[in-house]
Amino acid sequence: MDSRVIGILGGGQLGRMFIEAANRMNISVRVLDPTEKAPAKQISHFTPHIDEPFTSSAAIKQLAEQCDVLTVEIEHVNCDELAAVEQLGLAKVYPSSSTVRLIQDKYLQKVYLTEHGLALPEYTKCDTLDEAKAAGQKFGYPFVLKCRLGAYDGRGNYVVKQESDVESGFKYLGKTMLYAEKFVLFTKELAVMVVRRPSGQVATYPVVETVQRDNICELVFAPAQIDGQVRNLAMKVATDTVSCLPEGSAGIFGVEMFLHGDGHTVLVNEIAPRPHNSGHYTIEACGTSQFENHLRAVLDLPIGGTELKVPAAAMINVLGGTNGFKSVLDPCIASLEVPDATIHLYGKAEAKVGRKMGHITVVADSALQLRRRTDLIVGKLANASEEEQKRLEYRLSAPVPANEAVSDVEKKDVQEMAPLVGIIMGSDSDLPTLRPAAQILEQFGVPFELTIVSAHRTPDRMFEYARSAHKRGLKVIIAGAGGAAHLPGMVAALTPLPVVGVPVKGRCLDGVDSLHSIVQMPRGVPVATVAINNSDNAALLAVRIIGASCSTYLDAMAKYMDDMRTGVEKKIDRLDIVGWKDY
Amino acid sequence: MDSRVIGILGGGQLGRMFIEAANRMNISVRVLDPTEKAPAKQISHFTPHIDEPFTSSAAIKQLAEQCDVLTVEIEHVNCDELAAVEQLGLAKVYPSSSTVRLIQDKYLQKVYLTEHGLALPEYTKCDTLDEAKAAGQKFGYPFVLKCRLGAYDGRGNYVVKQESDVESGFKYLGKTMLYAEKFVLFTKELAVMVVRRPSGQVATYPVVETVQRDNICELVFAPAQIDGQVRNLAMKVATDTVSCLPEGSAGIFGVEMFLHGDGHTVLVNEIAPRPHNSGHYTIEACGTSQFENHLRAVLDLPIGGTELKVPAAAMINVLGGTNGFKSVLDPCIASLEVPDATIHLYGKAEAKVGRKMGHITVVADSALQLRRRTDLIVGKLANASEEEQKRLEYRLSAPVPANEAVSDVEKKDVQEMAPLVGIIMGSDSDLPTLRPAAQILEQFGVPFELTIVSAHRTPDRMFEYARSAHKRGLKVIIAGAGGAAHLPGMVAALTPLPVVGVPVKGRCLDGVDSLHSIVQMPRGVPVATVAINNSDNAALLAVRIIGASCSTYLDAMAKYMDDMRTGVEKKIDRLDIVGWKDY
Repeated sequence: MDSRVIGILGGGQLGRMFIEAANRMNISVRVLDPTEKAPAKQISHFTPHIDEPFTSSAAIKQLAEQCDVLTVEIEHVNCDELAAVEQLGLAKVYPSSSTVRLIQDKYLQKVYLTEHGLALPEYTKCDTLDEAKAAGQKFGYPFVLKCRLGAYDGRGNYVVKQESDVESGFKYLGKTMLYAEKFVLFTKELAVMVVRRPSGQVATYPVVETVQRDNICELVFAPAQIDGQVRNLAMKVATDTVSCLPEGSAGIFGVEMFLHGDGHTVLVNEIAPRPHNSGHYTIEACGTSQFENHLRAVLDLPIGGTELKVPAAAMINVLGGTNGFKSVLDPCIASLEVPDATIHLYGKAEAKVGRKMGHITVVADSALQLRRRTDLIVGKLANASEEEQKRLEYRLSAPVPANEAVSDVEKKDVQEMAPLVGIIMGSDSDLPTLRPAAQILEQFGVPFELTIVSAHRTPDRMFEYARSAHKRGLKVIIAGAGGAAHLPGMVAALTPLPVVGVPVKGRCLDGVDSLHSIVQMPRGVPVATVAINNSDNAALLAVRIIGASCSTYLDAMAKYMDDMRTGVEKKIDRLDIVGWKDY
Repeated sequence: MDSRVIGILGGGQLGRMFIEAANRMNISVRVLDPTEKAPAKQISHFTPHIDEPFTSSAAIKQLAEQCDVLTVEIEHVNCDELAAVEQLGLAKVYPSSSTVRLIQDKYLQKVYLTEHGLALPEYTKCDTLDEAKAAGQKFGYPFVLKCRLGAYDGRGNYVVKQESDVESGFKYLGKTMLYAEKFVLFTKELAVMVVRRPSGQVATYPVVETVQRDNICELVFAPAQIDGQVRNLAMKVATDTVSCLPEGSAGIFGVEMFLHGDGHTVLVNEIAPRPHNSGHYTIEACGTSQFENHLRAVLDLPIGGTELKVPAAAMINVLGGTNGFKSVLDPCIASLEVPDATIHLYGKAEAKVGRKMGHITVVADSALQLRRRTDLIVGKLANASEEEQKRLEYRLSAPVPANEAVSDVEKKDVQEMAPLVGIIMGSDSDLPTLRPAAQILEQFGVPFELTIVSAHRTPDRMFEYARSAHKRGLKVIIAGAGGAAHLPGMVAALTPLPVVGVPVKGRCLDGVDSLHSIVQMPRGVPVATVAINNSDNAALLAVRIIGASCSTYLDAMAKYMDDMRTGVEKKIDRLDIVGWKDY
């Protein structure tokens, strides 16, 4: 594809997956890593690698002399030597040494981002015990003491619970270059990969939710199950963060963020100037993976598609456990039985506790199906009881609506998912009419939201709701209205989504007034009208609409129809047995 | 993942992509191939490979001694030696030597499949000129003379146009082991990958359409743009074909088929006992790729998901051309600009004319978007004129409905796609009312079908149509009906798909009769009802339903609504200028 040779500092799993992408395009990559059989080197033959530390000046220089572009898979590298390579013009360095240096020092990174208008958790420099105590007074307790350099996966952090902890924090971290950070009450941790070409052009991947355990990323869900407007905000924050980095900041960047407890404030936590664990899902789930886009960016080639090509994906880290390789292989073996799960094992020689040995990516046609598939693997990972395993396995194969015992667990899961259907009504007096719609959606495991939007009393709100609906991730809107019943039609005029109208029966005219108001739309703007007061059917229509392109819900609808048939068959039997007189 | 070592005979592109899958799972593969830097060996370091011909008995034995399982990436191997490996118990051989031997000889393969009840084009053994002439009399001219052994990519075939050609055919093929085959008037060539475990359990990938040029596969479209019932038949034929193979037939198999000119007969052409060019799309488009599933099958691990995880995918072969590597790189460079295109280059040392050097996979959210993306790359491949390139690039970015000039070309493309919407009506007298729906769908580039289905006059047909609709690939049904208007509701009772009902105005009651019949469905079975006689809105609703999960059509709907607004704005301007008196 390209005759230029790339040199990479570090030969771990990120380097390995980078080379996997390069192999596909037949581009040569040389690895600098002290381990002779480092993961990255295992899948690259005939290209001479260098078995030296990636901090070694001589080795970096040697690599630069043999390559056209240098890049990194870890930010803790020798920036002085990278700067020398740049100055001597031995090779291009992406991201540049100054970008890596800026990001290496988390305090400088934060100062830079603050200066460029990004919102971050409050922080302050903390070189002395007195400064730390002052931080405690300013931020309140608990707050976090952090190392400016060399920290990763939660190492280099210390939670200070009270003033008397400050000293032990300094001892524990054992370093002088520290800073203090206010403890953020966040509801979710979000992350976004952003790729940037040398020209500064950027492309942004979807927002994902990361789940940490003991400060190590355990799970990633894509897309994040949050309101679409917050998703859009997080994408903007990530894009702005990477866009404001200095010239020469080319390559892929991982931006970690907090979703504040208020539900709508997004704060930047930190940046990684390289492929990131939260972006592994892109291999199976996006048009172009983070690794290939990193490759394209450092070669200044056009950036590939960053959007999700599947409806939902999850990434499960496989860590070394106390059982060594058994802890690693157990979840992999479990995932062989889970449809559309892909195993990545990095070929590391030893399975130390907590070491990232591999990961598993799962894709699915819906957040519901994804949850079922992920739970099964995570259950094996967490050594769930045999009974719990069986429940999870049952859920994997169960059609929706599942039986009641399972359904209750799933209802809670589904409540936390981003809504696909919006139920709106002009007044709370319509709730009794619309409640069956909510019950049907709950029964089918369709995430939904329900609120009051009145065409005549809250016209601005109606505009805002309808105009933003598809950007927020809704797929169908159900609108109930009585009398003049303008809501469904007006909403349909403001959204490209399908709108289902439920005519609500008023005190006069038996609901025929609202039926005609809703159904007799002019050419150009359709409303899918159902029977008067029949919001059950509106919800069932919404399930059919979602099911048209999602077999999880299509199968559920087929089962629902089958259940209706057997329900009537039972009545037929009873009528036969009891007779019409006593029925 | 698994400590067993696999040995593969052949180190070309199929071996390379097989190793790519094995690398991900950290499974060791040893390659037997005479070329030192064969494509497969390039991405596998630290595992000793054997640089000997894969026909060499000694080398095969050596490989077997070092491995637990042997497999092949090419069927033209030394079956005697594989049989010896099996007999000596040196390693498992999947697929078994007897399966490979059966498939190597295309005539024996055909006899075997015929004996097992599969339908094939007529064929007969042809060792002598007289037998060939008899075949000509039996099959008519033209017919095809084929070599039983060693044929691939169209080599080893000779079209006999008249009796006097027979002799030159024998000369051209230069072999005695020939057979004759009747020329099949087919409309499409189909292919299906089937994976089989040693136990005999099989899983089947979707049906794809292959487009050949000069007997070499040029393009693959997944899923095949044919009626879903034919797709299901082709899947069944492929499944039956691989299931009937002898015991020991484990691994992945490619089944090539013809769709007969009658539009519904599927004939088996031939089988490949290995990963196949028509299955490359599975890497990006399916839950588990053909290569990983081959790996899983030969290790007797559970088979991974074989369904499409994206709505549509295409594969474009990149062949060596008269310009050498330039011919190879040009389409790759073009594809860098196409969203969701992935380049695979095999690392072959020389770009000979017609040699498979790589391939490009494109995925998309619809057949329409796929066509646009594919055309752009194929245009570059075929050295389309600059003007044509511009047209293709325009189409790539154009929202649907595109401008008229483009639209006419696309309308033709769309007509050949599998329908997503079915428009049905009780009588041809309803056609004037339903025609606008067809026009809207055509304008939006939505593939559709239109036919007569009457609830009261053709009840059996209605049952058949509605029950099979989702299996045939439809996503929405539009049903128009007047008077008693039972069609929409009855169809909705028989399908899990969304049904849009159009009340048709009759001679009395102004269509209110049909409106009420259609909209007032009982709880459990919804019909999305639109205004009386307003089939435009039925089609627009269908576009919104498809667009709910397909941004190509969602964007098109947003543009349509914007066009409506500007259309009214123009009228406002005209009214202002002309005045209400002269308007």
